[in-house]
Amino acid sequence: MSKKRVYRSKKKIGQIPGSLIYTGERSKEKLFIETFDYTKDFCVEKELPTIQESFEYKDTDSVTWINLNGLNHVTEIEALGNHYNIHPLILEDIVNVAQRPKIDDHVDYIFIVLKMLYYDDNQHIVSEQVSLILGKNYVLSFQESEGDVFDAVRDRLRHAKGRVRTLKSDYLLYVLIDAIVDHYFSVIEILGDKIEDFETAIFAGDVDGEISQKIQDLKREILKVRRAIFPLREVISRIEKNESPLIHKKTITYYRDIYDHLIHVSENIDIYREMIWSLMDMYMTSISNKMNEVMKVLTIMASIFIPLTFIAGIYGMNFEYIPELQYKYAYFILWGVMIVLFIGMLFYFKRKKWL
Amino acid sequence: MSKKRVYRSKKKIGQIPGSLIYTGERSKEKLFIETFDYTKDFCVEKELPTIQESFEYKDTDSVTWINLNGLNHVTEIEALGNHYNIHPLILEDIVNVAQRPKIDDHVDYIFIVLKMLYYDDNQHIVSEQVSLILGKNYVLSFQESEGDVFDAVRDRLRHAKGRVRTLKSDYLLYVLIDAIVDHYFSVIEILGDKIEDFETAIFAGDVDGEISQKIQDLKREILKVRRAIFPLREVISRIEKNESPLIHKKTITYYRDIYDHLIHVSENIDIYREMIWSLMDMYMTSISNKMNEVMKVLTIMASIFIPLTFIAGIYGMNFEYIPELQYKYAYFILWGVMIVLFIGMLFYFKRKKWL
Amino acid sequence: MSKKRVYRSKKKIGQIPGSLIYTGERSKEKLFIETFDYTKDFCVEKELPTIQESFEYKDTDSVTWINLNGLNHVTEIEALGNHYNIHPLILEDIVNVAQRPKIDDHVDYIFIVLKMLYYDDNQHIVSEQVSLILGKNYVLSFQESEGDVFDAVRDRLRHAKGRVRTLKSDYLLYVLIDAIVDHYFSVIEILGDKIEDFETAIFAGDVDGEISQKIQDLKREILKVRRAIFPLREVISRIEKNESPLIHKKTITYYRDIYDHLIHVSENIDIYREMIWSLMDMYMTSISNKMNEVMKVLTIMASIFIPLTFIAGIYGMNFEYIPELQYKYAYFILWGVMIVLFIGMLFYFKRKKWL
Amino acid sequence: MSKKRVYRSKKKIGQIPGSLIYTGERSKEKLFIETFDYTKDFCVEKELPTIQESFEYKDTDSVTWINLNGLNHVTEIEALGNHYNIHPLILEDIVNVAQRPKIDDHVDYIFIVLKMLYYDDNQHIVSEQVSLILGKNYVLSFQESEGDVFDAVRDRLRHAKGRVRTLKSDYLLYVLIDAIVDHYFSVIEILGDKIEDFETAIFAGDVDGEISQKIQDLKREILKVRRAIFPLREVISRIEKNESPLIHKKTITYYRDIYDHLIHVSENIDIYREMIWSLMDMYMTSISNKMNEVMKVLTIMASIFIPLTFIAGIYGMNFEYIPELQYKYAYFILWGVMIVLFIGMLFYFKRKKWL
Amino acid sequence: MSKKRVYRSKKKIGQIPGSLIYTGERSKEKLFIETFDYTKDFCVEKELPTIQESFEYKDTDSVTWINLNGLNHVTEIEALGNHYNIHPLILEDIVNVAQRPKIDDHVDYIFIVLKMLYYDDNQHIVSEQVSLILGKNYVLSFQESEGDVFDAVRDRLRHAKGRVRTLKSDYLLYVLIDAIVDHYFSVIEILGDKIEDFETAIFAGDVDGEISQKIQDLKREILKVRRAIFPLREVISRIEKNESPLIHKKTITYYRDIYDHLIHVSENIDIYREMIWSLMDMYMTSISNKMNEVMKVLTIMASIFIPLTFIAGIYGMNFEYIPELQYKYAYFILWGVMIVLFIGMLFYFKRKKWL
Repeated sequence: MSKKRVYRSKKKIGQIPGSLIYTGERSKEKLFIETFDYTKDFCVEKELPTIQESFEYKDTDSVTWINLNGLNHVTEIEALGNHYNIHPLILEDIVNVAQRPKIDDHVDYIFIVLKMLYYDDNQHIVSEQVSLILGKNYVLSFQESEGDVFDAVRDRLRHAKGRVRTLKSDYLLYVLIDAIVDHYFSVIEILGDKIEDFETAIFAGDVDGEISQKIQDLKREILKVRRAIFPLREVISRIEKNESPLIHKKTITYYRDIYDHLIHVSENIDIYREMIWSLMDMYMTSISNKMNEVMKVLTIMASIFIPLTFIAGIYGMNFEYIPELQYKYAYFILWGVMIVLFIGMLFYFKRKKWL
Repeated sequence: MSKKRVYRSKKKIGQIPGSLIYTGERSKEKLFIETFDYTKDFCVEKELPTIQESFEYKDTDSVTWINLNGLNHVTEIEALGNHYNIHPLILEDIVNVAQRPKIDDHVDYIFIVLKMLYYDDNQHIVSEQVSLILGKNYVLSFQESEGDVFDAVRDRLRHAKGRVRTLKSDYLLYVLIDAIVDHYFSVIEILGDKIEDFETAIFAGDVDGEISQKIQDLKREILKVRRAIFPLREVISRIEKNESPLIHKKTITYYRDIYDHLIHVSENIDIYREMIWSLMDMYMTSISNKMNEVMKVLTIMASIFIPLTFIAGIYGMNFEYIPELQYKYAYFILWGVMIVLFIGMLFYFKRKKWL
Repeated sequence: MSKKRVYRSKKKIGQIPGSLIYTGERSKEKLFIETFDYTKDFCVEKELPTIQESFEYKDTDSVTWINLNGLNHVTEIEALGNHYNIHPLILEDIVNVAQRPKIDDHVDYIFIVLKMLYYDDNQHIVSEQVSLILGKNYVLSFQESEGDVFDAVRDRLRHAKGRVRTLKSDYLLYVLIDAIVDHYFSVIEILGDKIEDFETAIFAGDVDGEISQKIQDLKREILKVRRAIFPLREVISRIEKNESPLIHKKTITYYRDIYDHLIHVSENIDIYREMIWSLMDMYMTSISNKMNEVMKVLTIMASIFIPLTFIAGIYGMNFEYIPELQYKYAYFILWGVMIVLFIGMLFYFKRKKWL
Repeated sequence: MSKKRVYRSKKKIGQIPGSLIYTGERSKEKLFIETFDYTKDFCVEKELPTIQESFEYKDTDSVTWINLNGLNHVTEIEALGNHYNIHPLILEDIVNVAQRPKIDDHVDYIFIVLKMLYYDDNQHIVSEQVSLILGKNYVLSFQESEGDVFDAVRDRLRHAKGRVRTLKSDYLLYVLIDAIVDHYFSVIEILGDKIEDFETAIFAGDVDGEISQKIQDLKREILKVRRAIFPLREVISRIEKNESPLIHKKTITYYRDIYDHLIHVSENIDIYREMIWSLMDMYMTSISNKMNEVMKVLTIMASIFIPLTFIAGIYGMNFEYIPELQYKYAYFILWGVMIVLFIGMLFYFKRKKWL
Repeated sequence: MSKKRVYRSKKKIGQIPGSLIYTGERSKEKLFIETFDYTKDFCVEKELPTIQESFEYKDTDSVTWINLNGLNHVTEIEALGNHYNIHPLILEDIVNVAQRPKIDDHVDYIFIVLKMLYYDDNQHIVSEQVSLILGKNYVLSFQESEGDVFDAVRDRLRHAKGRVRTLKSDYLLYVLIDAIVDHYFSVIEILGDKIEDFETAIFAGDVDGEISQKIQDLKREILKVRRAIFPLREVISRIEKNESPLIHKKTITYYRDIYDHLIHVSENIDIYREMIWSLMDMYMTSISNKMNEVMKVLTIMASIFIPLTFIAGIYGMNFEYIPELQYKYAYFILWGVMIVLFIGMLFYFKRKKWL
């Protein structure tokens, strides 16, 4: 079951380092390769049948974005990697989807792993690995499956919207990361809605026994989001600070903007974590309050009727000589006494604010 | 509902970086622009109908404060920003009200975002974004709506109170920030009063089921205040430490004073956080104590009357041969026995300190 | 009420920076000024009627200690400050008693704020602000009210006890701070006693409903002490590390001694905090244990007598044909059965360790 | 009992420093020595009867791996250590199995201690100490017992798989550490399964009184794993950063890969810790919920039947004059009243959602 | 009472700094002075009647260890201190037993305070202060009372075991500290046993009301041990890092060994702390479980017998016309009905897993 394995590593124990083995679950994904080759003046978009056709772009002056979907196709990834002189351990990281977001700074290129987050149709959060390699005049991107958040980027490239076509590959990298980070906002928006729904439900007392399980599930979702986002802050911060020749001074400002967004998202996540803990507290309090209410009902019923029953029991005794029994109005007097007792009890509980 | 969205980001997902979109809720606010242009000797105060009229102040020797209310008027903000050579990403930050307090140090100017806090008429806390740009001889300020905490500053400028007219734009910036930070004190004063009211209520046992919801609301208010104030400390600390040529040595002392105030406020906020947690604890304890009391009443009533009822039941049996029934004083003796039992029970519970 | 406002800031919102306004509660305190002027060979002690008489000591070679009580007398403080060239913001800090302990290192003098702690007659902790200014050949001290912890210092100056008369103003500053820090030990001693009294009371089960309120009060006292002492550590540590020409190498050792004492006190405070949390835990446990005991009594009484009452009820029925009723010894046999049941129940509860 | 001593130190109190005393429990382990001596071109594998036979490899150019199992054989270890000029304190550390993972950087060699983790047949986690010494052209490894995780390494050496035969001793060290770290993944996989089993059990309400003991055991397992893995991160990080001439630049990348794996494992462990705490919370909640349910059943039964019993008791009284008793249909009317009461009660509890 | 004062400072408030006042409780301890004077070739051991006899060793080439027991003898300590030129504040620290472990690095000597831990006859932990002064060719040690952990060291000196006689005073200091640290292991071993005993007791349900008090006591013991050991780590780490000419390069390795031991002990202490918190949790859970069980018994008894008693009550009514009463087998049928009800109830509770 997919959910069950969520926190598990999928490392292939005992393998020779540098061997490419896809560790994800989408092992039947079709290979999809597309390229955008552009300068300020033109933009050529292609969908490639084989990886070899993308090799020609390596030494052009134009900026090239090669996007590959389907990490199960390790042969093609290895071919592409070898052509661009990518270190084998990095190729291994690309197809091993249990990576934490990280950055590896090599001489000719920068390697970045991050996580794309979205909710699937069952409202389960999905964390998909995206690897990005920035070279002097190219960006390679690797994704598990076809659906992605890059449509707006494609659109901007095609129609030369914004500044993307006028700047270099480092700006393209920024635009891709920004698209992914932007999507985090909609994920935490949904998370926030879920938490508020719980809160409303708990306050309304409208809770069943499964709520603690649901809260537990929510905690996990937050953990998952946290694991995707928190290490990324460090990644972006290192891009900002590193003096890599691949990143131009002018684009640094844009990366700082991403960093601000990540800080913002992280803060929200921490707030949600704290709110979840409070929810659990409130739930416990509501259980205690309910128990209190149950106990009050029991105590009131018992305290009122047990003494009255005792009195009735007294006059149900069969002693030969019980003087009250013969007295004609005894029965009615007794009723009076019992009603007075009853009302007295009610007053007592009223004063104690149990009613 | 305004309250509901409080912790959410309003980022415009998928937009091109640098596009100006107001993300707040006051989209119908009227544009209001005022300028103060002053030196030691004169002070000219104007309310401007169009933003273009403020452009003339850019190259004067006098200090100019341009205050703009109404972040929904993005066109005017863009025009002003372009005239003063402000970076597009900063203009985007000004109108995107989901910023954390931060400082951006550019060559010609310093950009600062902070939050103005106040309680609205419904006693809900409101956090409004204020952006400040400090240039060589000007300060630009941008606010969401008209009501602000700068009246005392205006007054000092008009009547040359204090040192503000004799010093440069960096001191004006200090005065504006100081006015905002001063207001934090009244906000945490109200927070403190609320907490004490809860405390008194819980100690007096005067609590209803909604108190945990109210405590939760209070926690959120504190979170909100915290989010506004804590990052500001770092901002001020960076002003102190940065050797920006825009801030003179002599005014640094004043910024250190603000820093001290912020530390003071932050400390109080952390104390309030801790007190809130204690409140929750005390509330749980008071619930447990109440349940204890309820249980005691039930136990006392049941323990006293159940045995007595049993005795009465015995002599209500219809056996043909129960010798006691014939004995004349049996009934009275039984009453005696039961009264002794009753008193014995009372003593027992008294000794156990349940009464 | 004094206690209520304890954690609140008293900042004068909206005032011009540098304006001297006393923010404490002792606004009717009489002004008291004393001076000690001494070298190794002589020591002149005076009580001055006006602040102006203290001005003459500024340029002498002897060491001068000017001690001023009564922070409400802002005019005199301002006059003294101006004479000694103290920065206006520092004078503002002296009379604003809501300062955190801090150190400000100026060219000609060092400014230190700290808190004197003591228990008043109602056993409430009082935190009084003391400001100290160390100059080349003088120490100025400012206190809210007359009672202080400096008597031992005065005595040592008068009778040339210890090394104080043979050393410079930096040693005098040390002696004054040491006197205040020494007093912290007696404060935490009292705190420790209070905690132990609670512990004993909770273990003895001798608690009433107000104990959680008292624990809460204790928490606040600890918070107050913490706020006074923890920032002081940093202050002293900065004296040690700063290479101020006003502090001689040889006296640094003495400041390190104060630092050790502060670490010691801080550690105790943290231990007390932890013990307070444990107290709360133990109190909750004791409530649960009591409830358990109550429940056991109820359960034992009910479990024993409800079945017996049922049996009695059976033979109280009025069916025409109940064979047992006619049997002569039935009543006694029934008693036997009931006694056996009773004893069986007792054994059962004994085995369950409920008795 | 082995489990009991788990967290205890086994230090030999009062011994002279540098004396070799094996502190583990496998004091009857047979000595086993094997060597791999290889270059790119050949690989000689031997099992040695005496330690002295391994001495010849010290000054060869080929890379030598000497693996020794059986830490109880201190004489042989001392002999080997002396031959390779290992410091006596390091030899002491090798046989004292209560070490934390650590690295000691000497001039001629690097000493590393780490822990091999696996589950034994009773599903108890076992933490076995492995010591590694890296010299210029050799790696020495010391293990407590024979079973280890190095089989894949042996295989790669024999058949020249991967790059191991073409590189130096620093790569061999990497391969050995990598084999151990790889095994951590399977350990945390089992841990994760255990936690999920508990979670499922608690959610299904399928818990007995021993669950808190089992959770406690699980906590300990996690502690044990944590203690083995967390310090190792620092060890690897120091290998990365230290500029030891024994580790070549090119192999550093591989050590960084191990570091990434360790971060990954550590993160999972911290998540498990948090999940365990949540489990305990959920367990407490489930207890409270059950108690609530028990109380509801009691309250419903008592609240319904106690009043009805009271009514029956009334008409069981023996007053001479109770008018209802003579009325012919009274009995049936009473039944009606009681049924109405019964149904009314049910409705009341239904509305309260207790049913 | 000794135990009560445990966490209190004993500082002599208001005293002149540098005045020697013993603050411990063993004010009647007899003075005991012994010296070991040794080189590689000889070792002279003496017990001295007066402190003055130890003065001669100051300028010899041999290494001298002067051990003084009885901190109440301040005159002798002062005399020794003055002879060896020890700073007065250090002498004050030696006799003030409320010190934290610390190191003071002076030009001619290094001063170290640490705590010797052991369990006394009542199984209370005792923390005794030991001061060590390392000079060029001597070590001075000061202890509160006679019993110590140095016997093994004396033995090694006498019989030239190990390397102690061949090395200098810095190695002697190491040997003394190592002896004390070695003893920490036996202390935490006992602590671990205590915790396990509690655990076993709680799991076995074999707990009385005093367990929370005992857990509290245990917490304090751990705090005490923690306070003795944690600051010592920093002390040893500073010896390692400081480039004091009094400590030779070669002995640094030995100090690192102590450091490793201390890290090991500290880790265990932190684990114990965590286990104690878990114990408290488990205890709370066991209370809740017990209450649950009590409630179940009550609920079962009440739920079964209250309805049955109601039925019996019905047929105990004295209505003139109750048709069932006349029916001959009614009584037996009723028994049947009640038995069916009884068994039905049992099944119901069985299904709910309450039985």
